[in-house]
Amino acid sequence: MARPVVAVLTDFGIRDHYAGTMKAVALDICPDITFVDISHDISPQDVFGGALELAASFEYFPAGTVFLVVIDPGVGSGRRAIAAEAGPYRFVAPDNGVVSLALDSLPGPRVVELTEPQYARTAVSRTFEGRDRLAPAAAWLARGVAVSELGQPLSEWIRLRIPRPTRTGDRVSGEVLRVDRFGNLISNLDRRTYEELARAGRVDVVAGDSRVAPLVATYAEAVTGSVCALFGSSDHLEIAVSGGNAAEQLGLGRGAEISLRRIA
Amino acid sequence: MARPVVAVLTDFGIRDHYAGTMKAVALDICPDITFVDISHDISPQDVFGGALELAASFEYFPAGTVFLVVIDPGVGSGRRAIAAEAGPYRFVAPDNGVVSLALDSLPGPRVVELTEPQYARTAVSRTFEGRDRLAPAAAWLARGVAVSELGQPLSEWIRLRIPRPTRTGDRVSGEVLRVDRFGNLISNLDRRTYEELARAGRVDVVAGDSRVAPLVATYAEAVTGSVCALFGSSDHLEIAVSGGNAAEQLGLGRGAEISLRRIA
Amino acid sequence: MARPVVAVLTDFGIRDHYAGTMKAVALDICPDITFVDISHDISPQDVFGGALELAASFEYFPAGTVFLVVIDPGVGSGRRAIAAEAGPYRFVAPDNGVVSLALDSLPGPRVVELTEPQYARTAVSRTFEGRDRLAPAAAWLARGVAVSELGQPLSEWIRLRIPRPTRTGDRVSGEVLRVDRFGNLISNLDRRTYEELARAGRVDVVAGDSRVAPLVATYAEAVTGSVCALFGSSDHLEIAVSGGNAAEQLGLGRGAEISLRRIA
Repeated sequence: MARPVVAVLTDFGIRDHYAGTMKAVALDICPDITFVDISHDISPQDVFGGALELAASFEYFPAGTVFLVVIDPGVGSGRRAIAAEAGPYRFVAPDNGVVSLALDSLPGPRVVELTEPQYARTAVSRTFEGRDRLAPAAAWLARGVAVSELGQPLSEWIRLRIPRPTRTGDRVSGEVLRVDRFGNLISNLDRRTYEELARAGRVDVVAGDSRVAPLVATYAEAVTGSVCALFGSSDHLEIAVSGGNAAEQLGLGRGAEISLRRIA
Repeated sequence: MARPVVAVLTDFGIRDHYAGTMKAVALDICPDITFVDISHDISPQDVFGGALELAASFEYFPAGTVFLVVIDPGVGSGRRAIAAEAGPYRFVAPDNGVVSLALDSLPGPRVVELTEPQYARTAVSRTFEGRDRLAPAAAWLARGVAVSELGQPLSEWIRLRIPRPTRTGDRVSGEVLRVDRFGNLISNLDRRTYEELARAGRVDVVAGDSRVAPLVATYAEAVTGSVCALFGSSDHLEIAVSGGNAAEQLGLGRGAEISLRRIA
Repeated sequence: MARPVVAVLTDFGIRDHYAGTMKAVALDICPDITFVDISHDISPQDVFGGALELAASFEYFPAGTVFLVVIDPGVGSGRRAIAAEAGPYRFVAPDNGVVSLALDSLPGPRVVELTEPQYARTAVSRTFEGRDRLAPAAAWLARGVAVSELGQPLSEWIRLRIPRPTRTGDRVSGEVLRVDRFGNLISNLDRRTYEELARAGRVDVVAGDSRVAPLVATYAEAVTGSVCALFGSSDHLEIAVSGGNAAEQLGLGRGAEISLRRIA
């Protein structure tokens, strides 16, 4: 029997004990969990940032993985806590959209509100439901309890939307969704959009005010230190600097405009 | 059989290989350990900070967990290395108080000095006993060796004390013990102290020079961006800013005064 | 049967999902892996820094450990990806020297190029071979596939060299190789070099422009706040400040000169 995988994604940082405490609670319920940290360094309370990080990684996990996602600015408010099943995966999170991008890309999501008290700690803190309700729920799922046992089915839940590029004639305007550690600017422009536009002529990539040199297939093809554009590991257009940091070099960050322009 | 859990808490940071090397040494002795990182990002040599982080988290771990705690400014000096058993837990650490707050809150701690050479590496570095003596001891405990086998019993060990609030008439003065990633200021004032004072009238919370708006039950009850006070996940009074960072907004940190004042 | 250990060393940082995604891919192939993070915080694209971190830690891992090392400035270029077997260990990395210091200190390294497509993901990204080729190869090794199955043997591979101290008369000049979290300056001067020189008289240690007080056996022997020199946990000469940070106090970093001078 494979050991159950629980993937953990939070904005807790790594200085405080919070992520460790959640794992402790989970192991007490299901001792044979293998944890994988996706990140604990999402910016505090950045629900959209966490949702994108999950969307970019979840499909690489083994079938059966439980995703425990705690980015929870509304902790203690009326916001619901949910568990979901979709495709081969399970998810536990606050109902604030942080798992919605993943759910939207999977077949037939079924979502419940975490209402069954026997799957939470006896006393649930108003400020740390991650420890008292979400980690236990994830661990019970890892141990074999069905999502439907955890609470009442929901027909609606909070859904985030990735901003979509807009097309005006020969121009498609997108934006930077994520900036990674290497300073790569990862946009919402996908390969198909580019190829459609490129069918009828040469396409320029424009990042902020700068025209980027023609598309390359890989960082290594670009001149070291120069800005380049390429389709990255998630098949979205990235602006990068070979051997450097595009975000710093261009002074651009999340939300900055990246556009494609067809030249005659 | 559940796999043994070793919880690791250090000030090693995450850039260097030191935490990984300790785990390597432990796995060589006990291959089926499940590690849980509590933190590796305690400020360098901040024994008290580490002691508080352990005290806030240890009780959530499964019975049998071994805590390997290496914050060790006195490494290579005459300071002793210890193992302890208390309640359902075991601890391995330098004898500098870093596990003492946890031990003080558990029944019947028994402490030994790590004197038995067969449970350490053959050559013990004077600068990295975490690798050569403490990690091996933790791994042998995880593998089933009794604490009493590791060395000579001690009747005294270094104990730290959490500063206690002082009461003067209608005022209780406490202080900030920890500042977490979200900028929450976690004090040494507990709920009982507050409730005793509040029995006879309204109680104000004062943080530094600022009177904090009345106590709320949860971050979400407070107006976004305003300073609030609440009892946090460890039932101690916290000063927080809903959707913000109280430490930055108030300019307060560890040791800052937090007081309760009864108004008529 | 002991669970296979995969030790992971990257420059991915901990904010992005990249390290988690590699582990996800590996677990899908070999579900019973125990991961140990050596570091994910090597400076971006610092191949030499990663090579040193690996060299300082690998020998503490259990026999059979697979090291998955992804510091890969040449990703997507013609650079090869390799797997190696040496002593009791296996390694998977880009062929840029990042595992070469470890290989050079082990008997009889055998290296192959990762050419067999059945041990990679079907589509290999040009920008994230860690996910698509290296993590799968490490997982197949962990699962029991032989290094020789993964591709064609290589007789040459990229090898880095640790700068060697130079001797001129009564002086040996070395340099700082690593600066750790505590600000300790770890040099390429080993104990034997020191002892040879010291046979004929007193030896001074000079760090940058400062003569360092005589060698101590441990941080704790030095006066708090003063600069000292000692042989650290890897038996190389370190410059340290007891209770402080030598790198900051002396304004020195990687590459700074550390020398030994014999005084009559």
